[in-house]
Amino acid sequence: MNAEVIAIGTELLLGFVVNSDTTYLGRVLAGLGIDCYHQVTVGDNEKRLAQAIRVALSRADLVITCGGLGPTVDDITLETIAAATGKPLLLNQEILQQIKGRFARLKIRMPKANLRQAMIPKGAIVFPNSVGTAPGFLLTLRQAQGERLASSVRGEPFDSTQDRPVEPRTRLLIALPGPPFELMPMVEQHLIPRLKRYTGKTVIRSRTLKLTGLTESEVDAKVRDLLALKGKVTLGIYAHPAQVDLRITAKAGSKKVAHRLIAQVEAKIRRRLGNLIFGADEESLEAAVGQLLRRHRLSLAVAESCTGGLVQHRITEVPGSSDYFRGGLVAYANEFKNRFLDVPERLFKKHGAVSTQVAAAMAQGIRRLTSSDLGLGITGIAGPTGATPKKPVGLVYIALATPRGVKALRHEFSGDRSAVKFKASQAALNLLRLHLYR
Amino acid sequence: MNAEVIAIGTELLLGFVVNSDTTYLGRVLAGLGIDCYHQVTVGDNEKRLAQAIRVALSRADLVITCGGLGPTVDDITLETIAAATGKPLLLNQEILQQIKGRFARLKIRMPKANLRQAMIPKGAIVFPNSVGTAPGFLLTLRQAQGERLASSVRGEPFDSTQDRPVEPRTRLLIALPGPPFELMPMVEQHLIPRLKRYTGKTVIRSRTLKLTGLTESEVDAKVRDLLALKGKVTLGIYAHPAQVDLRITAKAGSKKVAHRLIAQVEAKIRRRLGNLIFGADEESLEAAVGQLLRRHRLSLAVAESCTGGLVQHRITEVPGSSDYFRGGLVAYANEFKNRFLDVPERLFKKHGAVSTQVAAAMAQGIRRLTSSDLGLGITGIAGPTGATPKKPVGLVYIALATPRGVKALRHEFSGDRSAVKFKASQAALNLLRLHLYR
Repeated sequence: MNAEVIAIGTELLLGFVVNSDTTYLGRVLAGLGIDCYHQVTVGDNEKRLAQAIRVALSRADLVITCGGLGPTVDDITLETIAAATGKPLLLNQEILQQIKGRFARLKIRMPKANLRQAMIPKGAIVFPNSVGTAPGFLLTLRQAQGERLASSVRGEPFDSTQDRPVEPRTRLLIALPGPPFELMPMVEQHLIPRLKRYTGKTVIRSRTLKLTGLTESEVDAKVRDLLALKGKVTLGIYAHPAQVDLRITAKAGSKKVAHRLIAQVEAKIRRRLGNLIFGADEESLEAAVGQLLRRHRLSLAVAESCTGGLVQHRITEVPGSSDYFRGGLVAYANEFKNRFLDVPERLFKKHGAVSTQVAAAMAQGIRRLTSSDLGLGITGIAGPTGATPKKPVGLVYIALATPRGVKALRHEFSGDRSAVKFKASQAALNLLRLHLYR
Repeated sequence: MNAEVIAIGTELLLGFVVNSDTTYLGRVLAGLGIDCYHQVTVGDNEKRLAQAIRVALSRADLVITCGGLGPTVDDITLETIAAATGKPLLLNQEILQQIKGRFARLKIRMPKANLRQAMIPKGAIVFPNSVGTAPGFLLTLRQAQGERLASSVRGEPFDSTQDRPVEPRTRLLIALPGPPFELMPMVEQHLIPRLKRYTGKTVIRSRTLKLTGLTESEVDAKVRDLLALKGKVTLGIYAHPAQVDLRITAKAGSKKVAHRLIAQVEAKIRRRLGNLIFGADEESLEAAVGQLLRRHRLSLAVAESCTGGLVQHRITEVPGSSDYFRGGLVAYANEFKNRFLDVPERLFKKHGAVSTQVAAAMAQGIRRLTSSDLGLGITGIAGPTGATPKKPVGLVYIALATPRGVKALRHEFSGDRSAVKFKASQAALNLLRLHLYR
């Protein structure tokens, strides 16, 4: 089975929006062992979309469109698919009720435009939208339609690139909404389970190990031999701000074999990098910290200056974080640090607000104030202003207060304000993680 | 002049890497007034790349490939372009010296594989690579070749989508390296100056107006006539979580005319939507709030519960925010709200922690405690746990305390924990903005 993805939207062609749907669908299809040979993007233009759909149906078994299912006039996917496949659009009462219900819950009268979103090509299986109004759908184009479609493109140069001759066959055409926050849950809940019925035995599995605290070159030096692996299992290295990912990919005849191949490489990597790896796949650093806090039954409070709430925002992104996270302060003004955290005035005078001493006092202050087991204190210069000759933009002190004392680290991060904030939040969470890991 | 971009790389199809080259080139082409109708991604496969190049040359005046120019065996672009255009590859001494020089400077012996990178199709203009070893190039396919190419695709369905009949014409084929940090300088230094010779005077300019607080359908209803505009100036509508963007795009003979066309549509939109528009282009909601606080010389403090620090994180993303933002609390535990914000115990008992009354008391508490002009209070249920029969996940109360009193709003947001947090932060910042706007 091979697939083609068609992304629809003039905003994609103009480069206003990153085409993240296609990237995401690439990963999903690879995970299912489905080859994808073409990704195509066209604008909100019926003629070109219709042609892209016809071409894709001529060379792929599975065609996925994303975008253009909204309620507005430039959303043309529904009509174009109907025209390209010869399937009439029918009003689906169930979807209509869902859309009406959605607006009722929001206490808004359903705009007339949304009525269109309840139209579905005849014979399509509906993928409900759990987040927005536009449903997706799957259309099976069986022999008769398949033949018609195939013959309409016969004689094209595409034939030469087909892995087998054009012949009547069943094709799947799937339409998904464009916004990633609508598309992704629909793929997880409806598309993947459905496609699993069609995929054969070849599976591609991958696993990503994530690190922070080392540069890409440092990680590369430790796993260079594995990065040269060829064949059934391969390793790739990917650098992100304050994070390095190692992705192991295996292609095998069964999930079990793929997992075994991955496990062998993973074991080697873990022997070399140990607890520098904070998590795998979708596991975030904040989730890893949360798990450790929960396991050790420890509570945490945070006092942030330069990170401005980002550390607490990340901690509270984890469901159930209220079990271990008590809260904290964003102490932007010195007066705040002094009044609420009991950071002594003399520390500011002697060492300055951005200093080991103030970071440590913040961590101890918030720990004491909230009767928490652990306290984190962060102070630094996020920029672009605030630097002094001795204290550059990017200088950040991070301290962790525990029942046994306080530990503080000095960092110098590169990048703009936003990058410094993020890198400082990575370092703070990792300091906490490494403390809990022991 | 119209363009097509072909991105080359199996890693793109597998979704391991985001296709940022295509997005970037989309913006570059739009800025030059060059229409781009198709973006195509193929893997490291000669047959499919050759076909994609032939198809692109049949329907576009300008074809840009990115990727596959590296020294390894899976880099096939050079040979494929040579085969598809009938241009032989010749060793370019100048490039060879540059590559050798690069390795000499790095004190590494040039691997034999890099010799290939000094081969260039006959007649091509070289784009030197200031960052890596792979040069790019521009190939002009004049009448004779053009005719051959055109005739080889005559009779394809593409003809029907062409804006003019297929006829012998000059086409440009440009090959760029894949890594964005190599591609981008090459585009800035070589491609853009070169393309300006061909584009003449046409420019495309666009401007995005951003709103929050209305649904896509509600915005659509107010500007439907403008969304139907065709021709020199068009309007598009794009939905994001808790945000709707309206993008005006103008195509004109000069920047000045394009800006005038945009200004005319913008004025109409602003008359209808007024202060619901919080900003334009890169301006964020938090930056708009910051500007208003600065203008009115007002200080702000924030007490967050369910948003967990996100509102303060966003406020402090804005450079210079320490001028008006004093800090605040993340009060996750009720005890915290009571102890530090003086939220009376009886309010929790009578109304619950998630209530208008507690939100208002939090806003007033943080305002008083920090001696700020304005206080924001946010309490709600981000989920997935914490809901009660009367208080569902997504229920959030947001209050703003001012010298004249306190105002609180009730919201019900859909989505997962992360979505609820983000939407609540949008609503909180917008409440503040609308108060300051008056």
